[in-house]
Amino acid sequence: MVTVEIIAIGNEILIGDVLDTNTHWLCQQITGLGGHVRRATLVRDDVPVIAEVLRQAVARGTDVVFTTGGLGPTADDMTLQAIAQAASVPLEEQAEALRLVQEKYEELAAKGYVAQAALTPERRKMAILPRGAQALHNPVGAAPGVLLTIEETTVIVLPGVPPEMKGIFTTSLQPALQALFGESVFVERVMIVECGDESVLAPLVNRVAAAHPEVYVKSRAKAYGPGVRLKVTFSLSGRERAQVEGVVARALGDLQTALDEAQIAVVSVE
Amino acid sequence: MVTVEIIAIGNEILIGDVLDTNTHWLCQQITGLGGHVRRATLVRDDVPVIAEVLRQAVARGTDVVFTTGGLGPTADDMTLQAIAQAASVPLEEQAEALRLVQEKYEELAAKGYVAQAALTPERRKMAILPRGAQALHNPVGAAPGVLLTIEETTVIVLPGVPPEMKGIFTTSLQPALQALFGESVFVERVMIVECGDESVLAPLVNRVAAAHPEVYVKSRAKAYGPGVRLKVTFSLSGRERAQVEGVVARALGDLQTALDEAQIAVVSVE
Repeated sequence: MVTVEIIAIGNEILIGDVLDTNTHWLCQQITGLGGHVRRATLVRDDVPVIAEVLRQAVARGTDVVFTTGGLGPTADDMTLQAIAQAASVPLEEQAEALRLVQEKYEELAAKGYVAQAALTPERRKMAILPRGAQALHNPVGAAPGVLLTIEETTVIVLPGVPPEMKGIFTTSLQPALQALFGESVFVERVMIVECGDESVLAPLVNRVAAAHPEVYVKSRAKAYGPGVRLKVTFSLSGRERAQVEGVVARALGDLQTALDEAQIAVVSVE
Repeated sequence: MVTVEIIAIGNEILIGDVLDTNTHWLCQQITGLGGHVRRATLVRDDVPVIAEVLRQAVARGTDVVFTTGGLGPTADDMTLQAIAQAASVPLEEQAEALRLVQEKYEELAAKGYVAQAALTPERRKMAILPRGAQALHNPVGAAPGVLLTIEETTVIVLPGVPPEMKGIFTTSLQPALQALFGESVFVERVMIVECGDESVLAPLVNRVAAAHPEVYVKSRAKAYGPGVRLKVTFSLSGRERAQVEGVVARALGDLQTALDEAQIAVVSVE
């Protein structure tokens, strides 16, 4: 399974100004691609810290690392500097990235969104990439995404503004994602159980999980009391949809049997 | 300044099933207390990984580490096992924690929310704490919070269910927080600027930030175009409110002057 880590970058996240929804969205996408997100780290705009966290992910042999944030035109956006440091390569203005930035500002100027299309130093900054990196067209904003390889790890550098991050992921990044993740499926089914106390459900869920170690079985409680419903999620990734669905269905069936015996009602299975 | 790290634990986060709002809420609270959150790590329910991340936070000399998640009655909740491993202490049933769990199930049974108050093995599990830990009353759910010290680091272990996490934080944890963070203030002011392009604003913001290195000055862009507003945040923590407010006001005033010169309109200052 393709292992993935995410590094979300920005003081605004750790100060509590911004809720980091990017990591959640990426986790959903990567899980859907059959990848395994093993860790996400939220760090400040701090070059040595970003570089250290990235180097550790590379040292763990992570297949793909996504970073979000810190690609803008202001001096506090220093992700690319940190990535160059982690990769031990210099930063340099890159022709293709500069073309993308120029094109974007011409488009914005033509629409009257910015006064001039000229490449100021702040705009040019977004085209200064680690040597050897590939620029990824940003269909929404000005800062290109960046793709580079450090040792065996593919590093994908995305902006922090959610529509820009999603825009690159769903367009210019697609060929790279297909090459990295190949064909795979993710199956998730959710059983809703009427059982006001997770501690009663726990031994049954534990038994089913132990019998199906390949399936990720998770029960989640929100409250106590009569009529309270608990959610048990079964999920699994694999290559063949029919095979993956069969394994998940067997685990679901076993929990259904155990619940019937314990006289706990199943409300629905989705 | 008190340095803080957060470790959010749970496969459901990294699989993309659950958006981790706990870390965001804790970042807001800690910033409000004058603390400095330097890193947050989201990990799976994996004992060696949780223990490693916690040990690294301790090794960095972090003053306070918060963990969320993995305190429930099911076998996949293994945070306390990982914390005991990181602290090199055994796990043991703890009288005060058991009293808290027992009390909660008696209360739930009295309300008719659970059938019996008896301490089953699954319920008892929530009272098995690392040796030397203090149990924290959970006003919302059954799993007590846990406080313990590893070397110079205070580790605060909270449940993952948001109302339980917030419930412990705002009640039984308050004396500990006061002792850890003492009296301090956090001041944040936000200037809304009518300027459709962050790259035009960037050199002005950079100049003000450089002149006031103690203030955290951050501009954030969401879109391009006429009428688009950019948000510039100024924030600072310290001991004396008047002094902190004065420093922030001076930085704000400098940006106001720079914007006036550049004929960029300030919409509001909050």
